[in-house]
This record gives sequence, structure tokens and C-alpha cells, in this order.
Amino acid sequence: MTEPTAPLAPGSTIGILGGGQLGRMLALAAARLGLKSHIYCPDAQSPAFDVTPLKTIAAYDDAEALRVFAGQVDVVTYEFENVPAATAEILAGLKPLRPGANALAISQDRLAEKTFLASKNIPVAPYRAVQSLEDLHAAVAALGLPAVLKTTRLGYDGKGQRVLRAPEDVEAAFAQLQPHPLVLEGFVPFEKEISVVVARGLDGTVRAFDAAENVHRYHILHTSTVPAAIPPGVEKHAAMLAKVIVVALDYVGVLGVEFFVLGGDRPTLMVNEIAPRVHNSGHWTEAVCLTDQFEQHIRAIAGWPLGDPQRMADVVMQNLIGDDVDVVPGGIDGDTQPHLYGKAEARPGRKMGHINRIVRS
Amino acid sequence: MTEPTAPLAPGSTIGILGGGQLGRMLALAAARLGLKSHIYCPDAQSPAFDVTPLKTIAAYDDAEALRVFAGQVDVVTYEFENVPAATAEILAGLKPLRPGANALAISQDRLAEKTFLASKNIPVAPYRAVQSLEDLHAAVAALGLPAVLKTTRLGYDGKGQRVLRAPEDVEAAFAQLQPHPLVLEGFVPFEKEISVVVARGLDGTVRAFDAAENVHRYHILHTSTVPAAIPPGVEKHAAMLAKVIVVALDYVGVLGVEFFVLGGDRPTLMVNEIAPRVHNSGHWTEAVCLTDQFEQHIRAIAGWPLGDPQRMADVVMQNLIGDDVDVVPGGIDGDTQPHLYGKAEARPGRKMGHINRIVRS
Repeated sequence: MTEPTAPLAPGSTIGILGGGQLGRMLALAAARLGLKSHIYCPDAQSPAFDVTPLKTIAAYDDAEALRVFAGQVDVVTYEFENVPAATAEILAGLKPLRPGANALAISQDRLAEKTFLASKNIPVAPYRAVQSLEDLHAAVAALGLPAVLKTTRLGYDGKGQRVLRAPEDVEAAFAQLQPHPLVLEGFVPFEKEISVVVARGLDGTVRAFDAAENVHRYHILHTSTVPAAIPPGVEKHAAMLAKVIVVALDYVGVLGVEFFVLGGDRPTLMVNEIAPRVHNSGHWTEAVCLTDQFEQHIRAIAGWPLGDPQRMADVVMQNLIGDDVDVVPGGIDGDTQPHLYGKAEARPGRKMGHINRIVRS
Repeated sequence: MTEPTAPLAPGSTIGILGGGQLGRMLALAAARLGLKSHIYCPDAQSPAFDVTPLKTIAAYDDAEALRVFAGQVDVVTYEFENVPAATAEILAGLKPLRPGANALAISQDRLAEKTFLASKNIPVAPYRAVQSLEDLHAAVAALGLPAVLKTTRLGYDGKGQRVLRAPEDVEAAFAQLQPHPLVLEGFVPFEKEISVVVARGLDGTVRAFDAAENVHRYHILHTSTVPAAIPPGVEKHAAMLAKVIVVALDYVGVLGVEFFVLGGDRPTLMVNEIAPRVHNSGHWTEAVCLTDQFEQHIRAIAGWPLGDPQRMADVVMQNLIGDDVDVVPGGIDGDTQPHLYGKAEARPGRKMGHINRIVRS
């Protein structure tokens, strides 16, 4: 449909695909702005269902449920990038879908994402598309070992990838990883990982939050520390690259960009991946920014003016994974802002919440 | 019932009496802490019903509905001080009621409140109880004119009071104000009004937010500015008095204390009134404190450790009354955090939302 450019009136309803913690935090932010949220999720136990009475429990490929949902909301957004293309197409035909379907198409396919980034002269790790075992052998010859073989779709938190360290790893990894095609990424000797959460409004305004320095454990984000310990020039460069990406995508909403920082006397950046949504490494914004990433996303997709991403204090965000959540409430102190997602069962590896801790200088 | 002292586990349910903006903001804060909220309100159109699926629509004197409600929650709190005593008694017999019934009894009766404050050597404006016209004439003779005649109950935002400027005002005002008894307050030549939002935890810990300087229009709060333009000694004294009050009440939760600041070379304070709940003049905390007044109240009544009330920036909160709300979204800028209450109709005098504006130094 033709994209309306008028801002949504207070009292309008945001449709959110996905009922996890990101959808929940988006709904909380929408409520603060006087906007309602309608959560669409197949799982009847979704955490986001606790923060709004408006919900649809249905499969993402249920065309009739999608149509009814679209009829009850004023704009549609999502908390995860793996929204099926057919779902996006149905919804985008009925209501504004923000961010748009092109951002989904690119970010849910590693190969499309790298091709897009490279086409905009954004530095990425060297890569080769792998359709066949023959392709893989050629890619290994070109990029060397170690290298990482990844599925192009549905990979997250370390799932869907194998590290190839020696030639004898190649055939097993190719057989194990499904579905094909795959992509082989050359090894990047990075010193640290940072990320930038950037927003673009319906009017084209772009605002980036400060870069966070990220530490992972078991392939899951463990901490985000802000400010990142990187030279000011590198931080500015990261923000600039993030802005290039949202402009190139004609993007509306918040987008997360993960970077590798390569060391040496003159550190350089490579984009690891992008996520067309609010991002775990941006949860610190809730504690120390007048406008946090969730409100910024809602402002953007509602066609409202973007808020100021300026940071008021230094902060460390720590994910609470599985039993980590038992630190709340007994183990929190005054300098800590806990945020729990309302999940009943603390399974190992499950993101149960996070804490933001102010760092006093 | 005997007061349990163990903290509520994440996933517990807070019962909130009242479905207005304060209940709504309490429910949003509870959600961030992984706690559910169940809103009890007679009005089916309550703003707080938009932010949780758990609600009871029933009168405050519906004993059976109150019992069912109590059975579904783990602690009960309220967004307004005029909870009927019988309601408080039923609920307190079934679940922890925080703040307790004594805070309600005192704060919903101006005379009881002043008597309590005076008994703790807290300075208040001179006052006299007025049962009869004879009492009133005697009170006017004692306190002089001008003076303010007020109902002892159900007064807020300038309702239930008359200014007596001349002897001929006395009889009409006595006849107009109902129900009796009334209280006559001597005129206080104050220079400004400030307020302190203070919290006391279940473990007795007390934390006060910085004082706000308040400006009213048409008897409704217009702006709260922080920091208040008062000497540091006066601010410390206000915080100390607020702490005396919550300790004397054996209070659990957030309490708002309004003060008159009397001028001269050595400014002094008088307590105007107290409110046993989150307070309009504390809405600024959401923008610039790691723990805002809503989260602080939930932490306290849940038996969780209190958060740090430290302020990260200077701020002005402005209420959006009636059509003021039309400033959102077109008229907001980046330095502004709008918070709307989801009310459909912007009637004159109705609190529709507020904005917090950062003041850059």
C-alpha cells in the first residue's frame, strides 16, 4: 500500500509480530506514548501477552488471522527478523509495515546481507557463497583456514554454524549444516565486538545511540558496556556506517549493527551482521537515555519525531541467562536497574532478563 | 493478617486499586520487574486496563469482588488515598496492604493529618477544626483573615475549599462546603511550593528523591522543576521531614509530601499535605533517575531492595491538561520525553499526560 506519512494519533494501535521480551518491551514503550499494542504470536504463553489485553494467538502463516490482525492495528512492526516473506507481503498490503519488507529480506539471509553491505562499500568479512561441496573446497582455498561455515538463514546465538579449523572438518560440516545454500566466512582476527543501535524516522531523520562494547558467553550476549573502549574516531566511523545502512535501506525504525573491531595502531571496523529491530545490545539505553531504543522504535514507526539518544551516565548491561535471574530480587543493589521478562521457567540458555548497572566515575 | 517479610518472587501479582494514570504507570513499572498487575476499578474505561490483561471492574464497596480480587494477587496497593476504610479492612485481612490502613486513615482526613503531623513536631499551617458556625467564627478570630476553609475529606486539585477574605464570606462558605466537619487553615505567606517523594522499604530503608519546585495553574499542578531553587539546607530539611513522616507511619511504599517554603533570610518549611502514593510532582523521576518513583513503589511493596533515587540531569515536568495534549506528537522535540495516559477524551481540566524536558546546562 502507499505509505502514509502522517504521524499516528495518540490512541492508535501498534501491531507487533512476536511475543517475546523485545515485543514486550516495545509494548511497554508504546504505552508510555499513549499508544496501544496488539501482540501477534503463535505461543499462548508469550511474555508480551502480560502487558496488553490485545492479542492474537495464531501461526505466522495463517493468512486469515493476519488479515483480521491487520484490520485491528494502524501500523505493523516485528521483534524478530525471521518473519516469513509471505507474512510480510500480506501485512504490507493492508497496513504500513515498518521496517519494510526489504529490510527483512536482506537481514534474514546472510548472503543477501553481505552482498547488500558490500554493494554499499561497507566493510564485511571476506565471504563466499557455498551451494555445493565443490564450492566449499574452492572457498576454503580462497579464504584459508580457520573459517566459519554458516547457514544463510535462521542462524542466531551461535546456532547454524561450524568452525572449520582443518581440511578434514570440511565435508562433515557441509553435511551437517542444513538447509543449503551456505556461506563461508573468512576468519577475522578481531580484538573486540561493538554494536550501534541506530534509528531512522519516517521523515528521514537519523539518530544513533552510543556504541556498546559486547562480550559473549557460549555464543550469547553476556554484557554490553558503554562507552566502548575504542578511539573516538572508530566510534564515529561505526555510527557513520550504521547511518549509511539505514539510509540505503530507506529504513524506518531501530536497527542494530554488530561490528568487529580489528586491532593494530589504526583500528578498523567490519560489519558482522545487522538486525532490523531493537537489539539486545541496546537494552542499556533504558537506564541512561531520555529516549530508549524501544521508545525510539515506536516513535519512528508511528511517524513521530525521534528522541534524543544522548547518554546521561556510563552503564553496563548484563543479560540474565537461565538461573542468573535468581539474582533478582535479593542480589540487586541500588545502582542496579533489573528488567525481567516475565518468563515462568528459567531454562538453561534462556534470556530471562537483564540488569543495567550505573558505573559511577 | 501478619505481615510477611519475604520479598515477592518474580512472577507474583500486584493488586492495584484504581485504574487511572498512576495505576497505569505502576503497572508498567511492575512489568519491568517481571511482576504482573491486576487492576481493580469500577470504571470500565480505565486507562490502566490497557497495560495488563488482569482486571476487575467492580465497586470499591463490593465485598465479594474484593475477596475474589484478593485471592488473585500477592500484595495490594492503591493509586489514590480515598480508598474507603471498609475496603481497606477487607483487603488487609486477606493480603498485605501496602501502604497500610493507617496511612489511608490519616491522609484522607485533613484534620487527622494535621493532628498527626503536629504530634510529630512537623510544622504545619495554623489550623482549627470547624464543626459548627460558632467554631468557624472562633477560628476566624484566632487565625485572622484571609484564611482557607476546607472539607476534611475528598478534597483535591482545589476542590472542596473556599478562601475567606472578609467576614461576610464566612457564613456562605460554611453553608457551601459539605460534608462537615471542616478545617480552617490560617493564611501562609509562602514564597513557593516544593515537594519531596520519599520511599520506605519493607526492611525500613528510606530513600528520598530530590525536591521538586511546583507551580500550579487553576489549582492543578502545572510544572515541577528539579532542582528546586532553594538553599541546600532547606532541601535537606525537607528530605529529613519526609523521612520522619514515613518512619512515624511505619510506612511501606512511596509517599509524596508537599511543602510551603516561607521566605525571608532564613527560609522555613511547612508541610501542606501528604499523599500515600506515587505523586504527580514525582513524574520527573522517570526521565532522569535510574529508579523512578513507580519502580521504587513497586520495589517497596514487593519487599525488594529500594533503588537509587540519584538524579542524572536537570529536568522540568509539565502536565498536559485537556487540549495541552495536542502538543504530542507534532510539537515534541528531541529533549522531551512525552508520557500519555491513553485517555480517549481531552476534557478541560483532565490530566491527559505529561512531558519531561531535560535542561541542558
